[in-house]
Amino acid sequence: MMDEFSFIKRITPNKNFQRSLIVGIGDDAAVYRSKAGFDEVICVDTMVEDIHFRLDTLTPFQIGYKALAVNVSDIAAMGAIPTYYLVSIAVPKHWQEESVVEIYAGMKQLAEQYSLNLIGGDTVSTNDKLVITVTALGQVEQGEQLQRSMAQDGDIVFVTGTVGDSAAGLHLLFEKGLDGPYHAGEQVLVATHQQPKPQVEFARMLINHHIRVSLNDVSDGVASEVNELAEASQVTIRLHVNQLPLSDAMQMFPREKQIEWALYGGEDFQLIGTVAKEDWQRLLEQCHLLGIRCTNIGVVEAGDAKVLLVEDEQVTELKVFGYNHFRK
Amino acid sequence: MMDEFSFIKRITPNKNFQRSLIVGIGDDAAVYRSKAGFDEVICVDTMVEDIHFRLDTLTPFQIGYKALAVNVSDIAAMGAIPTYYLVSIAVPKHWQEESVVEIYAGMKQLAEQYSLNLIGGDTVSTNDKLVITVTALGQVEQGEQLQRSMAQDGDIVFVTGTVGDSAAGLHLLFEKGLDGPYHAGEQVLVATHQQPKPQVEFARMLINHHIRVSLNDVSDGVASEVNELAEASQVTIRLHVNQLPLSDAMQMFPREKQIEWALYGGEDFQLIGTVAKEDWQRLLEQCHLLGIRCTNIGVVEAGDAKVLLVEDEQVTELKVFGYNHFRK
Repeated sequence: MMDEFSFIKRITPNKNFQRSLIVGIGDDAAVYRSKAGFDEVICVDTMVEDIHFRLDTLTPFQIGYKALAVNVSDIAAMGAIPTYYLVSIAVPKHWQEESVVEIYAGMKQLAEQYSLNLIGGDTVSTNDKLVITVTALGQVEQGEQLQRSMAQDGDIVFVTGTVGDSAAGLHLLFEKGLDGPYHAGEQVLVATHQQPKPQVEFARMLINHHIRVSLNDVSDGVASEVNELAEASQVTIRLHVNQLPLSDAMQMFPREKQIEWALYGGEDFQLIGTVAKEDWQRLLEQCHLLGIRCTNIGVVEAGDAKVLLVEDEQVTELKVFGYNHFRK
Repeated sequence: MMDEFSFIKRITPNKNFQRSLIVGIGDDAAVYRSKAGFDEVICVDTMVEDIHFRLDTLTPFQIGYKALAVNVSDIAAMGAIPTYYLVSIAVPKHWQEESVVEIYAGMKQLAEQYSLNLIGGDTVSTNDKLVITVTALGQVEQGEQLQRSMAQDGDIVFVTGTVGDSAAGLHLLFEKGLDGPYHAGEQVLVATHQQPKPQVEFARMLINHHIRVSLNDVSDGVASEVNELAEASQVTIRLHVNQLPLSDAMQMFPREKQIEWALYGGEDFQLIGTVAKEDWQRLLEQCHLLGIRCTNIGVVEAGDAKVLLVEDEQVTELKVFGYNHFRK
C-alpha cells in the first residue's frame, strides 16, 4: 500500500496541525492525542457511483467535497468540532490520476474551512464504479454531545436555512446535466445539491450557550428526520407545512413540488431539532449574530411517537419508511 | 439511513463495553472517551470483490473476518490495543441479508478475541461488486507507539510465525475452490489465507517490556515490508533467504515457490522488525512464554536505504515496487 498512500500524501497538505497533537501519520495508521475534557466523535459514510451520485450530476471535485460534507454534517449534529478525516476510495481502473486528485481537492476545500486534517486512508482499484468512504472524527465537551432524544412537550421545532433546495437542484441536474446553462436562481439550487454546507457553527453555538435541544441533520428529508426525533424522544411532533422555509430560488416550481422536495428530498444538510419555548428568542438572537436563518416549523406534544402534518385545516399522520437495502 | 443502521444493530452485540467508556452510539455517529495517558490510533482499509478477494476464495464469514483482521494487524504494528471498529459496506443488490449477516459474524468472531466493539458504520447498495471498508481504532501508551524508523546498525531482523502460507493457501484455493477437498496440511495454508491471525500479543509484549524495535506488519510480503523498514530508518538490511521461517505445510511445494511466496506473497499478517542484538535473547524468552515463534532472518547495517538478499554465497539487491493504481 506504500505507493498508493504516498500518492495521497503528495496531494494533501498535512503540514500545520492546528487543533490538537497528531503524534504521527504512518502509512497504515495515524496516531493522535485526545484533548482533556473532550469526548471523541466518529462517523463513517459511503457514497457509491450511480447509487448516491452520478458522474453527470457531480464533478470529481464535488464528489470529494460532498463525501466529506455528509460526514461533517453528522459530526455537527452531535455538536462536535470536526478534527480529522480518513478517506478510502475504490477507483475504477479507467480513471485518470487527475480525477482522483480533484476528489481530494474537493475534500480539501471543505476541510480548510474547519481546519480539518486528512490523517489517513486507502486507495484501491476496482473493476466497477467509484466507491468513496470517509471516516470523520470530532471532539465535543465531555457529556455535552447533542442528541435526538431530548425533545419535550411544548418544545418548538426548528430548522436552519431552507429545505428542499438539494432535491430541486438534483431535478435540474437530471434535466440539464453538469454544464447547464443555469440562471442565477437555478445555480443556487444546483450548488446546494453539489456542495452543501454543513451547519457546524449553529451546532457549536448551541453547545457554547448551553441550550437544551434535540437535534438531527437533514440527510434524508425533513419528514424522515423529524420522525427520528419523535421516535428517539417518544413524543408527538406537529409539523406546520406552511411554515417550512423554502428558498426564493425554488419558487419557479409548483408549490406541491417544493413541499415534496422539502419533506422527502433530503441532502440539504441543514440542522433540525426542538428547543424549549423559553429558549427560542435566545436561539434566534444567536442565529442572527451568526447570520443563520432558523425557522419555527412546528411544536412538540406529549403523546405517542409520531409526526402529524398540519396544512391549512388538515391534519394527517406522516408515514415514513426509511430506506432499507433488503426491503423490496 | 435509519433502517439500514438498525439492521446492523440488530445483528451486532454492543451490550458490554469492557475497555473504555462509550458515551453513546447514535445512528450516524458514535461518541467515546479516550483513556488518560493513551494516544489514539486509527486506520482504514478497503477490500473490493474480485480485486482483493473472490467469492470462490472467501466465504462471506471469512470476508468479514479478514477485513477486520487487516485493520487489527495495522493497529498491532503500532503496538496499540485494538478498541473499536466501524464498518461500511456497499452490498450488491442481489445479495441476501443472510450473507451480510455472515460478514458481520466473521468480524464478530475476531472482535471478541480482543474485546473489540463495533460502534458504527454505513450499509449501502451497489449495482456492482461488494466493497467493504473497515475503520479500526486502538489505544497506545502516550508516545510509545512502535515505528518503522527505529532500525539501527547492528540490529537483528526478525519475523514472527511463518511466511508465505497465505499465498500458498490462495494458490490452493485457485486450484480447488472453497470446498476442496483439502488434507490437513493444505487446510493450514488455506486457513491462513482466509482467517489470518493478527499479532497483537507480540506487539503488546514489546510495549510492556520497553523493547526498542522498528516494526511493520506483513501485508504486502516480506520483501516489500523490509524495504519499508530500510526506507523509514535509512539503513541497509541484509536478508538471509535461507533463514526465512517456512511452515511444514509448505514443504509440498518446490522450494523456489516457497521462497517466492514468502518474499512476495503477503497477507500473512505476521510482524516483521528489527531489534538490538543485546535485546534478542530477552525477546526470544518473552516469545517463548507467549508461544510465539520468532526468527532471526537478517541484520541491519549502516548505509543507503536498501535491502540485500543473501542466499548461499550470492548477494543481490532487492528491487521492490509497491503497487500503484496509476502505474501501468
